[in-house]
Amino acid sequence: MPGRVLCVGLCCIDIVQICKEFPGEDSDQRSIECQWRRGGNASNNCTVLSLLGAECSFFGNVPDNLFWKFAKENFDFYNIDTSHCVIYDGSYEFPLSTVIVNSQNGSRTIIHSNKNLPDVRADDFSKVDLSQFSWIHIEGRKSEELHKILKIAQNHASCIETTVSVELEKKRDGLLELAQYASVIFISKDFAAHHGWLDMCAAIEGMKQHVQKGATIICPWGDLGAVAYRSDVGLVRSPSYPPPEVVDTLGAGDTFIAATIFSLLKNTSLQQAIDFGCRTAGAKVGGKGFDVIKDKQNIS
Amino acid sequence: MPGRVLCVGLCCIDIVQICKEFPGEDSDQRSIECQWRRGGNASNNCTVLSLLGAECSFFGNVPDNLFWKFAKENFDFYNIDTSHCVIYDGSYEFPLSTVIVNSQNGSRTIIHSNKNLPDVRADDFSKVDLSQFSWIHIEGRKSEELHKILKIAQNHASCIETTVSVELEKKRDGLLELAQYASVIFISKDFAAHHGWLDMCAAIEGMKQHVQKGATIICPWGDLGAVAYRSDVGLVRSPSYPPPEVVDTLGAGDTFIAATIFSLLKNTSLQQAIDFGCRTAGAKVGGKGFDVIKDKQNIS
Repeated sequence: MPGRVLCVGLCCIDIVQICKEFPGEDSDQRSIECQWRRGGNASNNCTVLSLLGAECSFFGNVPDNLFWKFAKENFDFYNIDTSHCVIYDGSYEFPLSTVIVNSQNGSRTIIHSNKNLPDVRADDFSKVDLSQFSWIHIEGRKSEELHKILKIAQNHASCIETTVSVELEKKRDGLLELAQYASVIFISKDFAAHHGWLDMCAAIEGMKQHVQKGATIICPWGDLGAVAYRSDVGLVRSPSYPPPEVVDTLGAGDTFIAATIFSLLKNTSLQQAIDFGCRTAGAKVGGKGFDVIKDKQNIS
Repeated sequence: MPGRVLCVGLCCIDIVQICKEFPGEDSDQRSIECQWRRGGNASNNCTVLSLLGAECSFFGNVPDNLFWKFAKENFDFYNIDTSHCVIYDGSYEFPLSTVIVNSQNGSRTIIHSNKNLPDVRADDFSKVDLSQFSWIHIEGRKSEELHKILKIAQNHASCIETTVSVELEKKRDGLLELAQYASVIFISKDFAAHHGWLDMCAAIEGMKQHVQKGATIICPWGDLGAVAYRSDVGLVRSPSYPPPEVVDTLGAGDTFIAATIFSLLKNTSLQQAIDFGCRTAGAKVGGKGFDVIKDKQNIS
């Protein structure tokens, strides 16, 4: 069993409308199904890690209201520790996403809102006893505080055998600079496109100059699979493993990251790790939500 | 002050995401603003009637949960009576719509979900003391119960001076048959298109054979304004009254209907009534929500 993982980032409520088709603008349709889910990248990472068998904790800010009650119960259900979360009072709004899942192709279209909940603060993060974690994974956001948080994690990792990873996902400036603090960097297709890197290999090449010596760069690219690079290994690849039918791609990227971390924690090779990431993400998109990966047979 | 209006139909929660642009499929964006609103056609009709100065009641089924608490407080705020509503227990889900408003053109894209809340039942409707109402407006749905409800309303109206109106809005079979019970019939562009009526005048012509003798047919058509027909008046028209900037079209059709009813209650001419309907709907789309019509100066 690999060691405990700490995921730092956002928890939000996803209101997921599963639709017969992606709506045309100004149209009116009835969904096939409406689901409330606990969402947010770091929160989803925890769900997948837990389903795969890792012990994990979520660290983030949450307002103390009914949405938190819902999310907390769901964290508990998946056996995810939330004891380090910073609880804000109910005058703050819970971040919320409305998501349209097109049942024909599994596409997920996300509209996110976060009215007033602040980003996680370094002061709060510094109170967490990091010695219990083998891996600290941080969702990248443009925030001065996140630089401080990554520095704290990096300092901790330099003393004790802990891996620090960061996810750079959004099409925004100010994220690239976060790569310097981590030994594993996940970059998304959107993030790559924002920097003018038009394919997986260009993304790896482009990132190389922004990371620590010896760092691992991992770049999933939807149905083209994923690539990863570390100087002592070189470039490795994995194909994607699409399921018989693509049902729901919401959280597929979060699944890839969590499964890759899970694999790396077990000291598999870099190639094996991204291969397991792609297989698990492939299983996930074959079903609604994440529970489909509980059944190991779905991970092809 | 015109007499009291009863609006029969749906109350739902609208989660409105106001966006910089209408999303492309599989994209990811942050909204400008997220609002929770009480919605549903009949529920919106009441809001507009009340803002214009009419006394009104909403009749519909509602599950007794936190969404009802939210909706009830909002009904109370707008001085809308809900004492006749049928309260279902919390095991029923509150109908919910996620709505995308494109801030560039005010378009509203609606995805509606109603998991298990039943349609209104004639038995429940028969318990309402209809003698207090001058107008009974019913949102058309395909339901055997709604035929019975419209018959009850029609019987009542034949004894006492009360107007019964029905809205036929959705692109569905089984609504056309409801027109026979009402003396005022509102038909939407979508409903007309569903029956192959390609413009306002074709819609009026097409409807004529499905209504009572002497009934009024009213058909709004977005930025082309509206037409109405009654045999003793003939066909009358109104242009639309677009505001300087179209901000939010969610509920524009509901506004037109409510304002037209409000005007007809005051015994204005049919032409004046649809003109007031168009002016009020024009004012509404110039602002977020309905409060913009409170200021009579906005109704051009």
